[in-house]
Amino acid sequence: MNNLDNIHIILVGTTHPGNIGATARAMKTMGLSKLILVQPQTFPHPQATARASGAADILTHTQVFDDFASSLSAYQYIFATSARPRRIHWPTLSPREFASTALTYTQPIAILFGREHSGLTNEELDHCHYLIHIPTQAEYRSLNLAAAVQIITYELKCATEIPSPTPVDAHQPVSIQAMEDFYAHLEQTLITIDFLDPNNPRKLMRRLRRLFNRAQPDESEMNILRGILTAAGKSATKNNS
Amino acid sequence: MNNLDNIHIILVGTTHPGNIGATARAMKTMGLSKLILVQPQTFPHPQATARASGAADILTHTQVFDDFASSLSAYQYIFATSARPRRIHWPTLSPREFASTALTYTQPIAILFGREHSGLTNEELDHCHYLIHIPTQAEYRSLNLAAAVQIITYELKCATEIPSPTPVDAHQPVSIQAMEDFYAHLEQTLITIDFLDPNNPRKLMRRLRRLFNRAQPDESEMNILRGILTAAGKSATKNNS
Repeated sequence: MNNLDNIHIILVGTTHPGNIGATARAMKTMGLSKLILVQPQTFPHPQATARASGAADILTHTQVFDDFASSLSAYQYIFATSARPRRIHWPTLSPREFASTALTYTQPIAILFGREHSGLTNEELDHCHYLIHIPTQAEYRSLNLAAAVQIITYELKCATEIPSPTPVDAHQPVSIQAMEDFYAHLEQTLITIDFLDPNNPRKLMRRLRRLFNRAQPDESEMNILRGILTAAGKSATKNNS
Repeated sequence: MNNLDNIHIILVGTTHPGNIGATARAMKTMGLSKLILVQPQTFPHPQATARASGAADILTHTQVFDDFASSLSAYQYIFATSARPRRIHWPTLSPREFASTALTYTQPIAILFGREHSGLTNEELDHCHYLIHIPTQAEYRSLNLAAAVQIITYELKCATEIPSPTPVDAHQPVSIQAMEDFYAHLEQTLITIDFLDPNNPRKLMRRLRRLFNRAQPDESEMNILRGILTAAGKSATKNNS
């Protein structure tokens, strides 16, 4: 059973330091404490501290990463947020649906918020298991970054005040790093077996990531998958030699 | 059946113009359009326009009032928001409970948001029918003003996306102005009949307001109440003469 301390907020490529401070304040009012920044334009900054108001302690403990993938390595499940409909279909939750399941995870989870003007890239989304879609008016979807954090953390706070459903994750998926190792192995193998042309990849790996992220293999399943890849690679090399 | 255009936001005594702009943006993302300001410290202001981003049209149509009571005269029901528990007991709704009923009113309704540091005064609360309590962490309840508006308007947006309950207000309470006239009449009558000492009022009128605001008299009931007051005043004057 998770608690709000295990639900971490990751801001990716934030431009305005004021939004970082306002995010810390939004988190603290709802009981979250762990903020992570990936490639912020400016941090620390007096505007961040000012807008954090009484939540400056969260900024003091904020971790800053240069590398996107490294920021995710500690998490079992990663959720991306969006106020805009995405072109690519992705398993999608409302903020309320997300909140009702978030408390059932036994390991830390991360919620990603993208850049003020351009959100998350498709490559960044590839690392996520679910998309949280915040409902907005179709004519004006320009939700402020800290306001989006406020909505999600508010839903989490509300979810702590109702009895939570039975934990659903007796299933223990492998770590993010294990999935990345698998994708690297998979891609190499697909090239080896001439299925994937590295000069013309055509979103193949993205589609596969979506598939396997949804499948969430556990350790024994992953051992099988890796075994299959190893075997496929070996047999291809043997035939070519 | 109400729609989001008939749900108006009133900011009372806002200090920071940036919060006014951020409020306009929060409203527009969720489909609300009518913003009213009572005694803002500074408005219009470039910071308000900047933070409104693409929602500057809402600021253009914002009405500004010097007098608190005048800002409320158009509304049948008035809701006050708070992130702090109030000393005085007041009929209280969660943001979700509020949103599920807000769409059933047939007349415009107003949601009040108080000053950044001190909220609404008890005298201002006396004008409200319900309190909306936004849940926050007990150790840090310092919700930003525009963030509070974002939470309430988000809940309203969510409520538009589910089928709304049967309208509940076949009952038609009298106008705010009629209630104010009644309270003035009531107070005068209580003085006349020596029940209320104007030099030592002891919150009597506040308690009576709470009672009658909860009762929400309709026109014929109000006629009866006023008739009673008139009669009581007359009989007291007659005995004193």
